[in-house]
Amino acid sequence: MSLAATMDQAPGSPPFDHARLDRLMEAAGLDLLIVTSKHNVQYLLGGHRAIFFDSMDATGISRYLPVFVYPKGAPEKAAYIGHRLEGFQHEVNPFWTGHAETSSAGTMDAAEKAVAAINRLGVGTRRIGVEFGFMPMDAAAALRRAFPDAEFVDALYVLERQRARKSVAELEMLRIASELVIDSMLAVVANHGPGTTKRVLSEALRREETARGLTFDYCLIAAGKSFNRAPSEQAWQAGDVLSLDSGGNYHGYIGDLARMAILGEPDAELEDLLGRIEEVQQAAFKAVRPGVLGGTIYAAGEHALGRAALPGSVEFLAHGMGLVSHEAPRLTADGPVPYPADDADRPLEPGEVISVETTMKHPRRGFIKLEDTVVVTETGSEIYGNRARGWIRGGTQAQH
Amino acid sequence: MSLAATMDQAPGSPPFDHARLDRLMEAAGLDLLIVTSKHNVQYLLGGHRAIFFDSMDATGISRYLPVFVYPKGAPEKAAYIGHRLEGFQHEVNPFWTGHAETSSAGTMDAAEKAVAAINRLGVGTRRIGVEFGFMPMDAAAALRRAFPDAEFVDALYVLERQRARKSVAELEMLRIASELVIDSMLAVVANHGPGTTKRVLSEALRREETARGLTFDYCLIAAGKSFNRAPSEQAWQAGDVLSLDSGGNYHGYIGDLARMAILGEPDAELEDLLGRIEEVQQAAFKAVRPGVLGGTIYAAGEHALGRAALPGSVEFLAHGMGLVSHEAPRLTADGPVPYPADDADRPLEPGEVISVETTMKHPRRGFIKLEDTVVVTETGSEIYGNRARGWIRGGTQAQH
Repeated sequence: MSLAATMDQAPGSPPFDHARLDRLMEAAGLDLLIVTSKHNVQYLLGGHRAIFFDSMDATGISRYLPVFVYPKGAPEKAAYIGHRLEGFQHEVNPFWTGHAETSSAGTMDAAEKAVAAINRLGVGTRRIGVEFGFMPMDAAAALRRAFPDAEFVDALYVLERQRARKSVAELEMLRIASELVIDSMLAVVANHGPGTTKRVLSEALRREETARGLTFDYCLIAAGKSFNRAPSEQAWQAGDVLSLDSGGNYHGYIGDLARMAILGEPDAELEDLLGRIEEVQQAAFKAVRPGVLGGTIYAAGEHALGRAALPGSVEFLAHGMGLVSHEAPRLTADGPVPYPADDADRPLEPGEVISVETTMKHPRRGFIKLEDTVVVTETGSEIYGNRARGWIRGGTQAQH
Repeated sequence: MSLAATMDQAPGSPPFDHARLDRLMEAAGLDLLIVTSKHNVQYLLGGHRAIFFDSMDATGISRYLPVFVYPKGAPEKAAYIGHRLEGFQHEVNPFWTGHAETSSAGTMDAAEKAVAAINRLGVGTRRIGVEFGFMPMDAAAALRRAFPDAEFVDALYVLERQRARKSVAELEMLRIASELVIDSMLAVVANHGPGTTKRVLSEALRREETARGLTFDYCLIAAGKSFNRAPSEQAWQAGDVLSLDSGGNYHGYIGDLARMAILGEPDAELEDLLGRIEEVQQAAFKAVRPGVLGGTIYAAGEHALGRAALPGSVEFLAHGMGLVSHEAPRLTADGPVPYPADDADRPLEPGEVISVETTMKHPRRGFIKLEDTVVVTETGSEIYGNRARGWIRGGTQAQH
């Protein structure tokens, strides 16, 4: 069929800093990368995501498996093995790689075509970086059979580090995503009044984000005194606090922010509690600038958290984000996504993006949280979606 | 943390026909299933999808990996290992399994917790069904280490067969999804006039489907004489045909339909061409009823295709669908998703759902296609989204 095209074209220029990738591969002792996660394939292809498989992977008796092959120091030998349904996109916007084919249908033929491309290109295969979490076991077995002497290493760390410093274009997408998440939250809060369930509010946020051009990722939502953050039949009632914590991505780049709303007017205690959380956030923001150690953010946030003396269970969290909701810089081993805090002792660099969260579970007042996105700039920092930081009044435009 | 809960509760009743699953496992010689794909976990948990990971898998230094354990003939020993962020949903809507924990953070700890649960339950592990395409290589290695004498078999076929006969509740979700995809297409076509790009039309369909409660999966779109079906800057112009082929799911269940639109009035040739495609569709629909061999649909469709004598390149396709866009019954080895046509010689059963597609690439008139969803009922068949089968007039409500 016409879509199952194989084409060798004049290679273009990599849409990423390939010298940096080569250095990272050299440091990790990698000869070759075989990349199969959607987010890393998108990154290496300069923004491409297969439209047919954006929301799902399963198809037929296998699944979608994109394969990007990158030999160290030889971007002109990079190759992309796409699904046959990606041919239309390749026609509209040709892949930059010297070798590109859109011919696979599942894991096994994708792996076999990647092996054929690797052998044809004659690149080194002594130590191969693959994504352990995103390489299905059948494709992994095919690679092991094809390269029985190769050592397979998790490519996650090299790829995560490669992505850690965002380009101007990437930052712009993160900024847009953050602003649109805030706009969407403001619309949801204004348009809904007492008695609206968390399920309806969450669905409304999904629709508002989508209507603004985002892909909705999730909405964690808590109301009243409850700490439960799943959509449910619990209704938002007069006087209730509402915590909205949502991720929505713009062409893959995630806006991840949390804001607080209330039906009615906040009393002095609520104003004080959110104000103290805001102080922790601001103290952490102030610590962000190039050259300071990543751990400085934690020191600042946790010091402020201690000074704020908030009641109940409190938590300060900071983590890198971008194409992945928790990625480098990795500043702590704690949090909902535990990992080695490799970047606590490393200087922050311009283009790194950090999500900063302060959370309180108040025994009487409920779940109160702010989460923000802070970018390390050449001279300091910039905050995306830096609005609506106080109590947002609910139901101001609700239809009754 | 409070979310990392492990709880053993009184087991509920499986939300699926477990006797059927036991028979399928027996026939395949499987002692145990270890299920890790989102669609099969959703099926086995009676509709649960992790809200945080609905649109993405990557997080931290690993990925989301749900693990459902099902020992043959012992539903009371079924276990679910969820991510720690799934605890909120478990609180709202407890999992039915006797053992349920929401404590994992990545592939390796999820696999280790599953191994611990399997060992604690004391179930057979001689032959273990796992999903080859949805079991990451690191988790697979952990399972091999834990069960060195086990034989690992692809569980896809057993699970696909289990899902092939849809319940009344599943059919209702497929019906809703199909109707809402049609409603969304009608809105997009009515609201856009000459000069609208395919990119804008595709994005408009994403928003219309989302606004109606669907999760948008994809839009394949062709306009004018082009056979390219990717969103692009190509504009829909007066007189141009427009093919919309979209998938949108309702709680995971996919509506997948294709309709034709035109800006202006279709001429006699276009009316005739779409009419002949419609005849092929209707001939295939008529062949659908319980007890006839799956291949009968192909025989009917291809016979009608021959009789229709359509110009250009033509294709008739029929495939099962449901939680996966191409699944059992598998009626052909051809098509964009090739697989063994195991069901061509098997009688159709009530509750099976078949997508029927007739496609023409006309050298002068462009890409013309209809796609429909047909359900095998107790007495015959039912068609979902059975509307707007002719040329839909574009721009009738466009804002100028």
